[in-house]
Amino acid sequence: MITELITVGTEILLGNIVNTNAQFLAQKCALIGYSVFYQSTVGDNEERLADQLKTALRRSDVVILSGGLGPTEDDLTKETAAKVCKKKLIEDENTKKRIKNYFARTKRKPSDNNWKQALVPEGAIVVDNDNGTAPGIIMEIDGKTIILLPGPPNELIPMVNSKIVPYLKNKMPNTILSAMVKICGIGESKAESMIRDLIDQQTNPTIATYAKTGEVHIRVTASASNEKDAKKKIKPIVEELRKRFGDAIYTVKEEETLEHVVVRKLQKQGLTICTAESCTGGMLSSRLINVPGASDILKIGLVTYSNRAKRKFIDVNRDTLKKYGAVSKETAKEMAKGAVFKTDADVSLAVTGIAGPDGGTKEKPVGTVFIGCYYNESVVVEEFHFTGDRNKIRELTVVNALDLLRRRMLENHEEKNND
Amino acid sequence: MITELITVGTEILLGNIVNTNAQFLAQKCALIGYSVFYQSTVGDNEERLADQLKTALRRSDVVILSGGLGPTEDDLTKETAAKVCKKKLIEDENTKKRIKNYFARTKRKPSDNNWKQALVPEGAIVVDNDNGTAPGIIMEIDGKTIILLPGPPNELIPMVNSKIVPYLKNKMPNTILSAMVKICGIGESKAESMIRDLIDQQTNPTIATYAKTGEVHIRVTASASNEKDAKKKIKPIVEELRKRFGDAIYTVKEEETLEHVVVRKLQKQGLTICTAESCTGGMLSSRLINVPGASDILKIGLVTYSNRAKRKFIDVNRDTLKKYGAVSKETAKEMAKGAVFKTDADVSLAVTGIAGPDGGTKEKPVGTVFIGCYYNESVVVEEFHFTGDRNKIRELTVVNALDLLRRRMLENHEEKNND
Repeated sequence: MITELITVGTEILLGNIVNTNAQFLAQKCALIGYSVFYQSTVGDNEERLADQLKTALRRSDVVILSGGLGPTEDDLTKETAAKVCKKKLIEDENTKKRIKNYFARTKRKPSDNNWKQALVPEGAIVVDNDNGTAPGIIMEIDGKTIILLPGPPNELIPMVNSKIVPYLKNKMPNTILSAMVKICGIGESKAESMIRDLIDQQTNPTIATYAKTGEVHIRVTASASNEKDAKKKIKPIVEELRKRFGDAIYTVKEEETLEHVVVRKLQKQGLTICTAESCTGGMLSSRLINVPGASDILKIGLVTYSNRAKRKFIDVNRDTLKKYGAVSKETAKEMAKGAVFKTDADVSLAVTGIAGPDGGTKEKPVGTVFIGCYYNESVVVEEFHFTGDRNKIRELTVVNALDLLRRRMLENHEEKNND
Repeated sequence: MITELITVGTEILLGNIVNTNAQFLAQKCALIGYSVFYQSTVGDNEERLADQLKTALRRSDVVILSGGLGPTEDDLTKETAAKVCKKKLIEDENTKKRIKNYFARTKRKPSDNNWKQALVPEGAIVVDNDNGTAPGIIMEIDGKTIILLPGPPNELIPMVNSKIVPYLKNKMPNTILSAMVKICGIGESKAESMIRDLIDQQTNPTIATYAKTGEVHIRVTASASNEKDAKKKIKPIVEELRKRFGDAIYTVKEEETLEHVVVRKLQKQGLTICTAESCTGGMLSSRLINVPGASDILKIGLVTYSNRAKRKFIDVNRDTLKKYGAVSKETAKEMAKGAVFKTDADVSLAVTGIAGPDGGTKEKPVGTVFIGCYYNESVVVEEFHFTGDRNKIRELTVVNALDLLRRRMLENHEEKNND
C-alpha cells in the first residue's frame, strides 16, 4: 500500500528540530510492508496543510500525519483534516475523562484549551494517548486511511508501537516478519561487503543493513501467507549471518540492546561492576542503568574527569599522569584497577580520551580513546581512534567499552558454554 | 522568498537515516530570511521527482534539492531537473579537471560512471565541491532559483556554508537578524499565554516559541535594511520578555546552554561541585562536562543507583532509606549532604526518582523525582512530578537539577549584583 507521511510543524520547517518522527514512522511502515513513497513537512498553516493532505489523498492509500494536535490555537491538524474529509468535530466523552484523569494524576489543572483536545471527527476511531492529552485519530474514508498522531515523540512512539502498528498490520493481507541481527565492532561498509552476495540475491526475505553509532544492524524481512512460513524463510539467512559474523553478533533479538546483553551476562555470572569515566562523563553508567535491574550489578559509577579526581578517588598515580598523560594506556589501566580496588566491585570499565573539539595533539589527535576493562583478575586496555564530533566520539566510546566487556565475558569458558 | 526543500533518497523514505540535511538547510534558510514553507522527500524515481519539482516551482521562489547527484544509475536528480527545465546537459571542463585531481589526491582511479558527474545543465552556475566529486548546481530560470546539492552531509554542509549561503544572502534585499531568549522552569503553554498579546501583535520582529525538554526558547527575528536597524527592532522586545519572565530567563545568547550558564557561574564564584545521581545514572555529570573547562569545577560525579551505594559511598542513613524510601525528600537531602562531605566539594546536586516504566506506587507514581542541592551551607530539596517515558523523565530531571542550582546561585546577592 502506498503510504505518505506528513509531519506538521513550524519548528521543523525552521530547522529547530530534526524530523525524527518521519524516520521512526518510515521505519515502522517499512517493517510491516507499507511502502512510503512520499514524506513532506508543512507548517501550522491551514491552507497549505489542506492542500498537502488533498495531494496525498490523491496519490496514496494511507496518509499518516503527525503533529499539530496540541491545545493551542496554532494546532489545527485535526480541524483541517476534518474539513478536508467533510466531517464535523464532536466531543468524545472517553477522551474528556482521560484528559481529566491525566491532569489529576500529574497534580495540575487543565486549561480551557485542553478541552479542545477531546473533540474528534465524527465516525473516527479514537486512539488513547497514554502519555499525553491529545488522542490519536484514525479515519477510513473512500478506501483511504488517514491517521493523525501527536507530535511529541514520547507520545507518538508508544502509541504507534502499541496501537497503530497492530491496526495497520491487520489491514495487510500478508504476514510480514523480520529478524534483527545486531553487530558490534565491524564498520558498515565492511559488514556490507561481507554479505554483498546475500544482498544481491535478496528477494524474499530482503536484507537491509543499518548503520548505528558503533554498531551495524541487519534486518531480515520475510513476507508469507502465515507466521510459520515467514519464520521458515528467515531462519536460514540468520544462520548464514551467524556463520559469517560470529561473536561480533551480540544479539538477534529486536528489542535487546548492547547494555541489556552486558547487564544480563554480569547478572548471570553474579558480578558487580564499577565504571570510571573521564571523557564520557557518566554516559556509560547512564547506559547501564537503562536496563531494569541494573541496580544489582552497578556498584557505583564514578566520573573522574579531572586529573585530581583520578588521583584522589581511584588512586591513579601522579607520576603516571605526568609521564604518560591522562589519555594513555597506563592511565586507563590504573583507572580500571583503582576503580575495582576502591569500590570492591568485581569488574570495571574505565575510559579516558580526547573527545574534542580541543585538546588534540599530533601524537594524540581528537578521537584518541583508551578503554580499560578489569575482569577475571586482569586488566585489558584497548586503544581506539574515533572520528566525528564530541558527542559522536563519546557515544562511540561508550559502545566500544560495553563491547570490550562483552567480548571478555564471552572468552570466559564457563559463560560461553552456558549461554 | 518562499523556499522549498526536496531531499531525494530511498534511504530516507525507508527510515534508514534521519533527514539531518533538511534540518540543516532549514536552519540556514531561516537565519538568512528565506521562508521554508514546504519540505519533502521522494525516492530516486524520475517520475515522482519530476512531479515534486514541478509542484515546487509552481508554489515557491527557491527550490533546493539535495541528494541523487552520485555517479550511479540510480542517481538522477540532475538529469530530472534538467529535463523539467528543458535544458541540455553539457560537459563542464572545469569539473572534469577537478574530478581528475580529486582521484589523484585520494590515490584512487575514477570509474567510467564518475565522468557523468562532470555533466551540468546548460547555462547553470557550477559550484565546486571541495569534499567530493559531484558539483553543486544553481539554475536561474523564469525568476525561480533551483539549487542542486550533493547528499552526503560532509559535502553538503561546507558547500552550503561557503558558497550557497553567500549566494542566497546576495539575492536578499533585507538583513535578517534574530535573538534567542531561553527560559527554564515554565511550560510552553504557560510561557505562550504570558506573551499571547506580543505574539498576536507580531509583524516585524516576529516572535516564535519552541518547546525543548524542560525549556522554552523564544526567537525574536527582525528584518531591516541594515544590521543596526534590525538590532534596534529586536531590543525592545527582548527587554519586554525580560520584564515578563525575569529570572526564568537563563540566557539570551543563541549558543549558550543551561549547563554553560551553570558552569560559568560556578567558575565565577570559585566553587567546585559533586553530583550524586540515582535515576539519571550519570546524565547530569555528562551534561556538565559538555562545557569546556568543566574539569575545574566537577570534583567528581557519583552514580549511586542502588541503596547500598547510597549508604556506602555518600553516607545515606540505613534508617532513612527504610523509613522514607530511596525516592524521598529525606534521602535526597542526605545524598546532597553526604556527597559534599565525602568529596570536599563546595556544592552538590543529588537526584533520586522513579523514571519508570516500573517502580511507581500510588503515593509515588512514575515521574516522582526529588532534587537536592547543597549550596552556601544549606540543602534545598525540591519535589517534581514529570510525565513521559523513562528517558524523558531522566532528561527533565537533569534540566531541573541544573536550573535549581542556577536559581540558588542567583539568589546569592553578591553574584546577582556582579552578573
